[in-house]
Amino acid sequence: MCRWLAYTGTPVLLDSVLYRPAHSLIDQSLHARMGVETTNGDGFGIGWYSPGMDTPAVIRETGPAWNNRNLREISAHVRSHLFFAHIRASTGSAIQQTNCHPFRHGRWLWMHNGAIADFHRLRRDLCLVIDPSLFADIEGSTDSEVMFFLALTFGLDQDPLTAVARMAGHVEQLGRRHGVDHPLQMTVAVTDGEQLWAFRYSSERRSRSLYYSAEVDTLRALHPDLEFLSGLSPETRLVVSEPLSGLQGAWNEFPESSCGLVGAGADFVQDFVPLTADGELPHHALR
Amino acid sequence: MCRWLAYTGTPVLLDSVLYRPAHSLIDQSLHARMGVETTNGDGFGIGWYSPGMDTPAVIRETGPAWNNRNLREISAHVRSHLFFAHIRASTGSAIQQTNCHPFRHGRWLWMHNGAIADFHRLRRDLCLVIDPSLFADIEGSTDSEVMFFLALTFGLDQDPLTAVARMAGHVEQLGRRHGVDHPLQMTVAVTDGEQLWAFRYSSERRSRSLYYSAEVDTLRALHPDLEFLSGLSPETRLVVSEPLSGLQGAWNEFPESSCGLVGAGADFVQDFVPLTADGELPHHALR
Amino acid sequence: MCRWLAYTGTPVLLDSVLYRPAHSLIDQSLHARMGVETTNGDGFGIGWYSPGMDTPAVIRETGPAWNNRNLREISAHVRSHLFFAHIRASTGSAIQQTNCHPFRHGRWLWMHNGAIADFHRLRRDLCLVIDPSLFADIEGSTDSEVMFFLALTFGLDQDPLTAVARMAGHVEQLGRRHGVDHPLQMTVAVTDGEQLWAFRYSSERRSRSLYYSAEVDTLRALHPDLEFLSGLSPETRLVVSEPLSGLQGAWNEFPESSCGLVGAGADFVQDFVPLTADGELPHHALR
Amino acid sequence: MCRWLAYTGTPVLLDSVLYRPAHSLIDQSLHARMGVETTNGDGFGIGWYSPGMDTPAVIRETGPAWNNRNLREISAHVRSHLFFAHIRASTGSAIQQTNCHPFRHGRWLWMHNGAIADFHRLRRDLCLVIDPSLFADIEGSTDSEVMFFLALTFGLDQDPLTAVARMAGHVEQLGRRHGVDHPLQMTVAVTDGEQLWAFRYSSERRSRSLYYSAEVDTLRALHPDLEFLSGLSPETRLVVSEPLSGLQGAWNEFPESSCGLVGAGADFVQDFVPLTADGELPHHALR
Repeated sequence: MCRWLAYTGTPVLLDSVLYRPAHSLIDQSLHARMGVETTNGDGFGIGWYSPGMDTPAVIRETGPAWNNRNLREISAHVRSHLFFAHIRASTGSAIQQTNCHPFRHGRWLWMHNGAIADFHRLRRDLCLVIDPSLFADIEGSTDSEVMFFLALTFGLDQDPLTAVARMAGHVEQLGRRHGVDHPLQMTVAVTDGEQLWAFRYSSERRSRSLYYSAEVDTLRALHPDLEFLSGLSPETRLVVSEPLSGLQGAWNEFPESSCGLVGAGADFVQDFVPLTADGELPHHALR
Repeated sequence: MCRWLAYTGTPVLLDSVLYRPAHSLIDQSLHARMGVETTNGDGFGIGWYSPGMDTPAVIRETGPAWNNRNLREISAHVRSHLFFAHIRASTGSAIQQTNCHPFRHGRWLWMHNGAIADFHRLRRDLCLVIDPSLFADIEGSTDSEVMFFLALTFGLDQDPLTAVARMAGHVEQLGRRHGVDHPLQMTVAVTDGEQLWAFRYSSERRSRSLYYSAEVDTLRALHPDLEFLSGLSPETRLVVSEPLSGLQGAWNEFPESSCGLVGAGADFVQDFVPLTADGELPHHALR
Repeated sequence: MCRWLAYTGTPVLLDSVLYRPAHSLIDQSLHARMGVETTNGDGFGIGWYSPGMDTPAVIRETGPAWNNRNLREISAHVRSHLFFAHIRASTGSAIQQTNCHPFRHGRWLWMHNGAIADFHRLRRDLCLVIDPSLFADIEGSTDSEVMFFLALTFGLDQDPLTAVARMAGHVEQLGRRHGVDHPLQMTVAVTDGEQLWAFRYSSERRSRSLYYSAEVDTLRALHPDLEFLSGLSPETRLVVSEPLSGLQGAWNEFPESSCGLVGAGADFVQDFVPLTADGELPHHALR
Repeated sequence: MCRWLAYTGTPVLLDSVLYRPAHSLIDQSLHARMGVETTNGDGFGIGWYSPGMDTPAVIRETGPAWNNRNLREISAHVRSHLFFAHIRASTGSAIQQTNCHPFRHGRWLWMHNGAIADFHRLRRDLCLVIDPSLFADIEGSTDSEVMFFLALTFGLDQDPLTAVARMAGHVEQLGRRHGVDHPLQMTVAVTDGEQLWAFRYSSERRSRSLYYSAEVDTLRALHPDLEFLSGLSPETRLVVSEPLSGLQGAWNEFPESSCGLVGAGADFVQDFVPLTADGELPHHALR
């Protein structure tokens, strides 16, 4: 599977987050501790928003992040208030830029860690649900891209929490119908360039790890040596697959089956419940 | 668009065909003469059959063929009696291995030069026709791969000529229904490792160029200097998008809207007529 | 050989210069008009300075520029007051990032179009002249990188015009000693992040083309449609291997064997004369 | 550091050795057990000899071996009696094909695991010793390539054991002169297409692991399940950085500071002693 990181807050150079912290995301590309795989070397991507531009930039490459000089150059020169970074461990799908995260549609960015179980078998039925006007924009062959296009189909643009819940509900329903025990495993980050939502969920209630950073004041007290913490506004936040450093106290875990809005204004974390066309997915349907 | 070459006959080192002739395919990657584009630098691929193995090898890369050292190495050391080579000029779809030709399914190889007009608009409807058991194997985003999967759906394994005719008929019908004037433009090579079929067709009856080589005896007389011609069996044949050298006499053009079986045994060239579920596509439907 | 572009002046998004003009540099990667080769598809690079940072960013890739999505993304989001862009046509040296331009050393950027004749034979003797403290930083195998390291050895940091003249003089002398008729062919751009120097020179006095843009006021009058010209300061300048558009009047040619300081403050163009350790290279030595 | 494998004996498909055994070399690219790094994802290469051709084929790529489809394709179709495979973990030098192993010169192949300590500081002096007629063929920036060119300079073509001993002696001497405590760490495989030599050595007498396979009969008894062992001639041998499977008994360790001739005819393992121009490097010089 993969590792990812989302940042929102005071504009910083990307490398202050991507490279400088101990056990940084780039370090995790070689030595992840909490993932199913320790190596995430099957591609990477970053997406960032620039002031005054609606559409984010997206850079994706098929090689490992740890040895990519261009990533280091960009990170040392690009400053952003909202950015995503993702390192990929493929479970078989092709090594190509269009299978790397983040995915972009208009002003939206999406990245994912996890899998739709038995995706090969479910793929066609899932694709048929995608809005026909979106279908032709599919470029890759991953479950992650299909999940994004389903969320777009289900109204990501209007109501992200509901759209992702309906995407998850649809995957659950379709998977069960095909006899898949635990169809969905996901941590997802999605943003429209202004707000950042994060999701942690899995059919079997054993979701991949997901953390968000503590208050900046708390972080500063815990990591007085971390250069990039100085000058950060109080609402600055990181969401990460696994903590950037081993220190306890700096990171809050997303509870099992939860989602949240992270960053400026009204932070919150709440239960995440998959939805179907008929409403909330009944809990027994999940067992 | 692209350029391609198919070889069948006496086993030769690939480079005797790919590199050594004047105006070779690799040279065409930089300087094509008859294509819509003169540069075919958006990827390449080769596929070859080895004695005693059903499944062909396929090598595909996203960079230009002309500067690829690995292609040169493989070509100088691999010997085959049946191989495909393709150089790509993308018209917008992603630069990735899974968009490069040849495409493989089981023992089949497929490569294409041309386009489905307005493919972005037709893509979903075309994909829906693909056999559900094949759908999930789609890895790229090209019209060429969809054409291959449609041909497989329509029985490529049983009757290649009919399957390709039905694929073309389906593209024609669907395109017209969507108001596309000239839906299909194609030269295609397809093989099961034993027989090699070639197709030249376009809706507007102005198909891309396609040639097959003259009898080996004739070739030898015309090109006494070409090393690889020595020792070739009489039924050895090349099919090419454009002649490997400028010499008249060595190449026979496939007629407009034709197809053929090339190589050992019964060579033939015949008219190519798209078929629909209801039979032959009436000619007025094409105008 | 190659094509390149250098920009200095009012900060602009890179793509306003790299992609939007007719016959842009990216277009030249497929269809150069004045180069020895029409295709420059063997790699590319950009280097740019960010406000408040001494070291420029450098992005280099081995594929063609025309189909590189990451280059397009960066160009659409990065704004700079001083940047280089280069597209490469290799004449045999390896396709690798370390052979792509621009080259960087500290705050310096260097890019080159041309060649040292018979470089394979001269390479060792040229390398021996490179300052031993710099030698180990050589990463690639091009004449261009060696020229840069020679210029650094000859005091680029103190006096760029003299350092490049001594580099050229040394290549001339060494080449003649080895019996090479016309050892050097070059257009070069070099900057320390503040000033931009350009050189046009060849042993045989038939140098590759090199142009600098006319006064911004003149440009605006000639190209009222070019978006990126609006809002440019008067001292904004482009130096290009070949004009970005075919319009006469917008471009001034560097005279044969000349060099210049381009941009803010004191523009000038003057004769370029290679220097040796003993002073000016006598003109008869060049014939 | 790296991992490598050399095979000599009965012609086999490459994948029977590279992919099929438990803990194969390709598996080691993700999960090496005995190396300094567990991940060897900074490029790979294979080199093989074809019957009747002096020059071996060499394929090198900059991405990880584990996800490379082309490597899998080639390995499944190419059969050879003598081949090298190498997976790279860079310690900082550029990720480029010319830094990947094996290196080739004429009919010779060379691959290396280890390092020249403080290479950045020694590089120029080492390069100066390389035969001037060879110098210009250096394409990369690794210590491994320099070691190969030094061995060629010292007569690899005439007497491999002495040439490598003199290379090692020269690195030792030069390193000591520069105050480097332990200048050399190496396991090396080298072949001319007929004979295969292997070396295990380090200045500090703590060399990286190196093994050669037991007699084929012994192997068959130990691994009755390994398909590729059936039909192998008795003199078939593998030399590997670390055993392909965890089973004790199948592998013989090269002793500390030893070298050997492996394969058909007269196998032997003997002490390896670096040589200088004045003869054997005195042992106290090494401490």
